[in-house]
Amino acid sequence: MGGILFVVSAPSGAGKSTLGAELLKTDPNLVYSVSLTTRSPRRGESHGKDYFFVAEDEFLKRRKKGDLIESALVHGFWYGTPQDQLEKLLREGRDVLLDIDVQGGRQIKKLFPSAVLIFIAPPSITELEHRLRTRSQDDEAAIQKRLDNARNEIAQAGDYEYLILNRDIGESVQKLRSIVWAERSKMDPEVLKGV
Amino acid sequence: MGGILFVVSAPSGAGKSTLGAELLKTDPNLVYSVSLTTRSPRRGESHGKDYFFVAEDEFLKRRKKGDLIESALVHGFWYGTPQDQLEKLLREGRDVLLDIDVQGGRQIKKLFPSAVLIFIAPPSITELEHRLRTRSQDDEAAIQKRLDNARNEIAQAGDYEYLILNRDIGESVQKLRSIVWAERSKMDPEVLKGV
Repeated sequence: MGGILFVVSAPSGAGKSTLGAELLKTDPNLVYSVSLTTRSPRRGESHGKDYFFVAEDEFLKRRKKGDLIESALVHGFWYGTPQDQLEKLLREGRDVLLDIDVQGGRQIKKLFPSAVLIFIAPPSITELEHRLRTRSQDDEAAIQKRLDNARNEIAQAGDYEYLILNRDIGESVQKLRSIVWAERSKMDPEVLKGV
Repeated sequence: MGGILFVVSAPSGAGKSTLGAELLKTDPNLVYSVSLTTRSPRRGESHGKDYFFVAEDEFLKRRKKGDLIESALVHGFWYGTPQDQLEKLLREGRDVLLDIDVQGGRQIKKLFPSAVLIFIAPPSITELEHRLRTRSQDDEAAIQKRLDNARNEIAQAGDYEYLILNRDIGESVQKLRSIVWAERSKMDPEVLKGV
């Protein structure tokens, strides 16, 4: 039996990266699938751990070769998931956490119907705007672009299996961890037969 | 929106009562649906908390009147779930834990298709036999009857949604709690629209 694929999507600023990192820290059976991106590293991000940071021509070459199981252009940068790495981990029975946008999540669901799709939303768009302004990482145009994108992602996330409104990091990590544990406890008739 | 109905079933000796009690202690949003039974109270059980202990003629009268949403004859005793109490709790938005056998669980699923069915199994029949002998509550014939019944319940539990192999109480409570939390995080498009 292979591992479980968990897809976590969220508008930027919803707290997804923090939640994912907290979850991974306490769950040795869960591994992070490192994506490729053409955007620059942010403070604290490192190559091979958070992302594989590549130039656009390399990204497009790998995409053309069919190395990527899904890819998406978000805020003007490319993001993609290397297929061989993901399939290898699942085949080895590892549960995998994949951090991608809603477009990517839907592509993944077509290829892996048993993937578990989790959407993390800010409590409200107003709260998201507040968070984006507080982290003061973006100029006004970038903030407006992120807010538009958030409305868009939220509008498309209705077919995700789970929804976490991220009001409080501790509570949200607990919810995320519960989803992982619950999915591992889904009925497996083969296990039942072995009792 | 109503509450979520969790049905927990297990062969006797699998540890279901302990697990349910542990879960209820730490989850104020979850309430226990008290069943009717014609069996005698065991040590420590009290009327109105663990069961409503009633005489067989009263049980059969209430069953005939249609007061019970499901009923089953197990090990020669009747068990049943009062319908009004259960529906009232769910209508009030409370999540309800219902502790019944697999026959009863299937009846409930037909009436409440959104009910979440959780089966708790002993790690093995050998281990179950060991536990039944250790608690030395039953004579040999009763033990054999419980083991037969366990094989029967296990054979029928394949359409339950979740399976917990109860190896360790602490771990199993954690799994049970995770299932409850995860089910509460299932996508609700109305909540998403409210973001």
